[in-house]
Amino acid sequence: MDDRELLRDVMDIIGRENCLDDCAVLPSGDRYLVASTDMLHEKSDFPAGMSGFQMGWMAIAVTLSDLASMGARPWFVLLAAGLDRGERLREIMQGAKACCDEYDVILAGGDLDHHDELTLVSTGVGEVEKDRLVRRRGSGISDALCITGMTGRAQAALEGNHRFDKYLFQPVPRVCEGQAIAAAGATSMMDISDGLVISLYDMVDANGCGYAIESQNLPLIPGMEREESIQYSLYGGGDFELLFTCPEDLLPVTGLDVTRIGTVIHAKEVLVDGVKVPKKGYQHFWC
Amino acid sequence: MDDRELLRDVMDIIGRENCLDDCAVLPSGDRYLVASTDMLHEKSDFPAGMSGFQMGWMAIAVTLSDLASMGARPWFVLLAAGLDRGERLREIMQGAKACCDEYDVILAGGDLDHHDELTLVSTGVGEVEKDRLVRRRGSGISDALCITGMTGRAQAALEGNHRFDKYLFQPVPRVCEGQAIAAAGATSMMDISDGLVISLYDMVDANGCGYAIESQNLPLIPGMEREESIQYSLYGGGDFELLFTCPEDLLPVTGLDVTRIGTVIHAKEVLVDGVKVPKKGYQHFWC
Repeated sequence: MDDRELLRDVMDIIGRENCLDDCAVLPSGDRYLVASTDMLHEKSDFPAGMSGFQMGWMAIAVTLSDLASMGARPWFVLLAAGLDRGERLREIMQGAKACCDEYDVILAGGDLDHHDELTLVSTGVGEVEKDRLVRRRGSGISDALCITGMTGRAQAALEGNHRFDKYLFQPVPRVCEGQAIAAAGATSMMDISDGLVISLYDMVDANGCGYAIESQNLPLIPGMEREESIQYSLYGGGDFELLFTCPEDLLPVTGLDVTRIGTVIHAKEVLVDGVKVPKKGYQHFWC
Repeated sequence: MDDRELLRDVMDIIGRENCLDDCAVLPSGDRYLVASTDMLHEKSDFPAGMSGFQMGWMAIAVTLSDLASMGARPWFVLLAAGLDRGERLREIMQGAKACCDEYDVILAGGDLDHHDELTLVSTGVGEVEKDRLVRRRGSGISDALCITGMTGRAQAALEGNHRFDKYLFQPVPRVCEGQAIAAAGATSMMDISDGLVISLYDMVDANGCGYAIESQNLPLIPGMEREESIQYSLYGGGDFELLFTCPEDLLPVTGLDVTRIGTVIHAKEVLVDGVKVPKKGYQHFWC
């Protein structure tokens, strides 16, 4: 059973609506509060060679990426740390603080615990005007399918291509881009941390439609063979880019580094150059 | 180094003000949002024999207790679960949902991860009017020192006195009491999850004054010898009671089960019947 199947198994308890998006959405006067929590473990989530500073940075960045995917302004973050050695805390907190400062987010507090394996859990809260919220659900048939930046480099780094280490070790959450994409009128959005294709399958589940990628439109990773670049781009995890859909006539989104990579289709499947592709990417498995 | 020392070590990074209370406090229009995160691990935080349902309940209860200690109404909770076996999730989520339902709190979402040791991290957000917020800091010299309910039974259960298992396995956060105590005009408050005396030392740190307990006023644990009951009450951890201070003339707080156990004093120490007592209770240690 993978984590997506496990989540489906408890949907009746916490409500299907609370399982579909990257964040929880709470009405609050004339706006929504959005909130997200992410648990990271040293062995399964932090690549070998990562510094404490970078672990702290990443713990915050994953949560800011979730908030960004709803079009929200991040407000504050809490960080709970389970430490194998107490002396690791200081560097981790410095990284967490640096990431919060970069995006003008309050590092408001946290919790400390002792643990055999380093465990970091960040929880972020953001705000968004009611007409600016973008969810996973909302793709319109024939909408343009777009991504920010470029996917695949984090995975390439993980597999030894050290030119791209910075994308793996200190990922940049698309905080400003998420708000701008929402303001421009995106119809649906999510972040791509587990990989592009697997994220699109999550979009299929949420929307009941499908997505057709034209591989010629995928941004190519510099200095890499075309076919290899496309494979990394489709299936590689660890990037913190956003994918979104919008009516064609909204493009280009002024001033933003976004690429149209395909189109929303009626059939509930994910196609690359017209061919259905496997649901593959980064997942946790329980055996 | 214990967790309190470790926290002091990073105060310069996240700000001393963010380390003093059970919750982070964020101004939001005419009120405050308060937020708290708590990490629990199977080996160090869940007593042997606890069911999955009870673990889920406790993960929520610890966070609701933190929110209550600020006088806040709990609003929503997120729960991140690191699971050794996926099939444990369902029962844990049922316990978490039951605790949320009991206090009319939204279980808004969470995160799933795989982990060798079961790890639950709950993060709660609540609201409180600006003039109702109660912090750890604010004790006035000669204020009455009070607690809700009774401390010590959870520790007695942990040590084999199974009559008290329910206090250990399914603790009741003082959600309504916290709000009522704040409304009545408490000057300072915190929750007592690590033990009464160690919590009072935290109050000393936050307030720069001290606390004198009169042991004859401590509620006695039913069916236990007086001296043994007092030791459990002073040093036992695992209860989810609140301690607070208020001007004497506020007492009794109508309709609430609270007991005056002592007085706020000038000297920065914790006294029991006039004698300074050791800073002892439940703490995590890093060696």
